[in-house]
Formats: sequence, structure tokens, C-alpha cells
Amino acid sequence: MNYQSTLIASLYEIGVIQFGEFTLKSGKTSSIYINLRKIISYPTLLISVANIMMQKMEGYQFDIVCGVPYTALPIATCMSIDYKIPMIMRRKEKKDYGTKQLIEGVFNNGQSCLVVEDVVTSGMSIMETTADLEQAGIVVTDVIALIDREQGGKENLEKKYRFHAILTLSTILHTLLHSPLLSQHEKEKIDQTLNLMKP
Amino acid sequence: MNYQSTLIASLYEIGVIQFGEFTLKSGKTSSIYINLRKIISYPTLLISVANIMMQKMEGYQFDIVCGVPYTALPIATCMSIDYKIPMIMRRKEKKDYGTKQLIEGVFNNGQSCLVVEDVVTSGMSIMETTADLEQAGIVVTDVIALIDREQGGKENLEKKYRFHAILTLSTILHTLLHSPLLSQHEKEKIDQTLNLMKP
Repeated sequence: MNYQSTLIASLYEIGVIQFGEFTLKSGKTSSIYINLRKIISYPTLLISVANIMMQKMEGYQFDIVCGVPYTALPIATCMSIDYKIPMIMRRKEKKDYGTKQLIEGVFNNGQSCLVVEDVVTSGMSIMETTADLEQAGIVVTDVIALIDREQGGKENLEKKYRFHAILTLSTILHTLLHSPLLSQHEKEKIDQTLNLMKP
Repeated sequence: MNYQSTLIASLYEIGVIQFGEFTLKSGKTSSIYINLRKIISYPTLLISVANIMMQKMEGYQFDIVCGVPYTALPIATCMSIDYKIPMIMRRKEKKDYGTKQLIEGVFNNGQSCLVVEDVVTSGMSIMETTADLEQAGIVVTDVIALIDREQGGKENLEKKYRFHAILTLSTILHTLLHSPLLSQHEKEKIDQTLNLMKP
């Protein structure tokens, strides 16, 4: 088993990947739901994920990391403390009290930043984050996601940034399709989804 | 220098403790502002803070940790991964899509929880978090904060929980008053604040 298969099995086993009927943020329904938040309850897996993502970035230079709110924040925190790279955070809304700042943390104009996301769909949440970072004078060079749902995010992001993903939805589905962990019913859901994903 | 003095000096040096005129969340003005968010850009200090907080909890039992949104989240994440204790998170608002949950992460009914906060003022934000945790069947036993601003939070929290704090505002101010790091002007602000704090 390669590291991707091991990672997919771990994510499936803790219930990050679920089969059923789900309403997505976009209003669309999906028979597969990826809820990466559960990973916060599995510190060892969280550390693995952060390590895998940092290893993927070997050879690339960046001064700071920034997680996209909210699920990627624990992942970015873990990357930051394990590799001693300063982190910044983007607030979703400006505070109206205290020191008013949209980007929290310490940074200098022109510093390069790695943006960290858990699951990329269209790339919209990432774009909201990078827009704020850029307005603050930060240079976003790379975006890394744990999972690319292959719904246009990669294409959108690559217009402006280098985009890296550890897993794609089709890799996950193909791997699970051959896994002894899944029921026949779940495998049918996967087949269904893979058919819908065909161009 | 004891560990408290070292910690206070580090927090001051990175600009977590600022002197000036600030409007607090409550609408009141304060000449001292504590912005712990900056700590995310200092991974080594963040790790130290998490370690100090976990050491303070030595001898206490809890199954899970939960950070109060938002500044305490990186601290709680760091405690969780360093000590391999599962983390949960409270959403500030219920999502209206996907799997609807107020508490994210994995937990069982009756599990005991350590709640982590960065700065306690009245204890209100903590109480909002503990209320949601308790409604989900989690037993909150202990609350730990890095800084207690000594504005009633301890008294409010101790009605229901064991409360632990690493630093109090008066410890910070008294320490800084004798620190070579501060200007005379800043020391005057401290004197002013200490006078206002007298019962």
C-alpha cells in the first residue's frame, strides 16, 4: 500500500468520507460527503496529514503559512509548529473592536505565503482568502489542499498560483472501490458518483 | 527569572501586550490591550505556551480538549497534538448545509473535557462554549486560560468549574513595571491601570 492508500483508509475509518444524501453549500446534493473536521479528534492522523503536506512542498520556498477558515486551521497550525514556520490567519469578518485587522499574526510586505486548505471544490473560499492576503501585501505563491474534489478548483487556482493536492476525489473513490472496508451498498454509491464525474 | 517572568517578557516582546487607547468588545476603553493572536506567528512560543498549560493540568483527568473560538484554537490544537489528546471544536453558528453539528469532532456522551481559552475577561465566551458542550452531553470539568484579566471571569467560572490560569493581569503588570524592556511612558500607563484595578 502506498502512502495515499494508507491515508485514504485512515480517513475513511474515522468517518471523514461518508456515503448518503447530503446537501452541499452550493445547494446541490451529493451522495458523498467529505467532512475533514473529524480529523481534529485524531491528533496522530492530524500530524501525519500535516507532515505529508509539508513533504509535498519540499523544494518550494515560503515565509509564512495561512490556513483557509475553518477546517484547514488545525492542519496549518500543525504544519507551522512542526516545521517552525510562522502562521497568519485571515478573519472572515473584520472585528469592530480592538486593533482592527483582517489578517491576524505578524508579517511583512512582500513575504511569500503558502495557503493551506482541507478540501477544494471550486476554489472560491481559497480565492477569498488569497484576495485578502494580497490586499495586505502578502505574495501568495502556492496553494496546497489535502483533497481536490475535482470540481474546477484546480483550474481556477492555477490561473494565479501553483496548486498542489495530496488526494483527488477520483483517487479516493477508486481506492475505496477496491477496499475491503466498504459495503456493497457503499461501492454502488461510488460507482454512481464516478459515472457522474465522467466528462 | 521564573517561567512566568520569561513568558511575560516573550509575550511583551512579540507585541501581545500593547499600551495605548483601545476600545474593548464591551465598548469600554482600556489603556492596555492584549492581543494573543500574534502568537500564531511564533511557533516556538506557541509550543511553549501549550506545554506550560498542559503542565499546569498535570494530575487532572480529561478525555478531550476544546478551544474557545477563535484565538485559543491554535493553542488547543498544539496541546492536542503534543499530548495526543483528541480535540473538539464548537462552531459559533450552526451550519445550514452538510452534516449539521454544533460541536465538531468525535466525542462520546459523558466524556470529560478541558476547555482552553487565551484571555479571560468576564468568562462569557467560555460560558457560551461550555453551554454548547454540555448540551451535547460533554462534561466540562476544568477551564484553563493563559491570561486572567481579573475582571470577574474567575469568580463566574468557579461557580461551575475548576479554573486555572497561567498569568493574571496584575502579575503581568507588576512584572513589566520592573522590566528594562518598557519605556517610562508605558510604565505610567501600567501605574494608571494598577490604580484602577484596586478594589
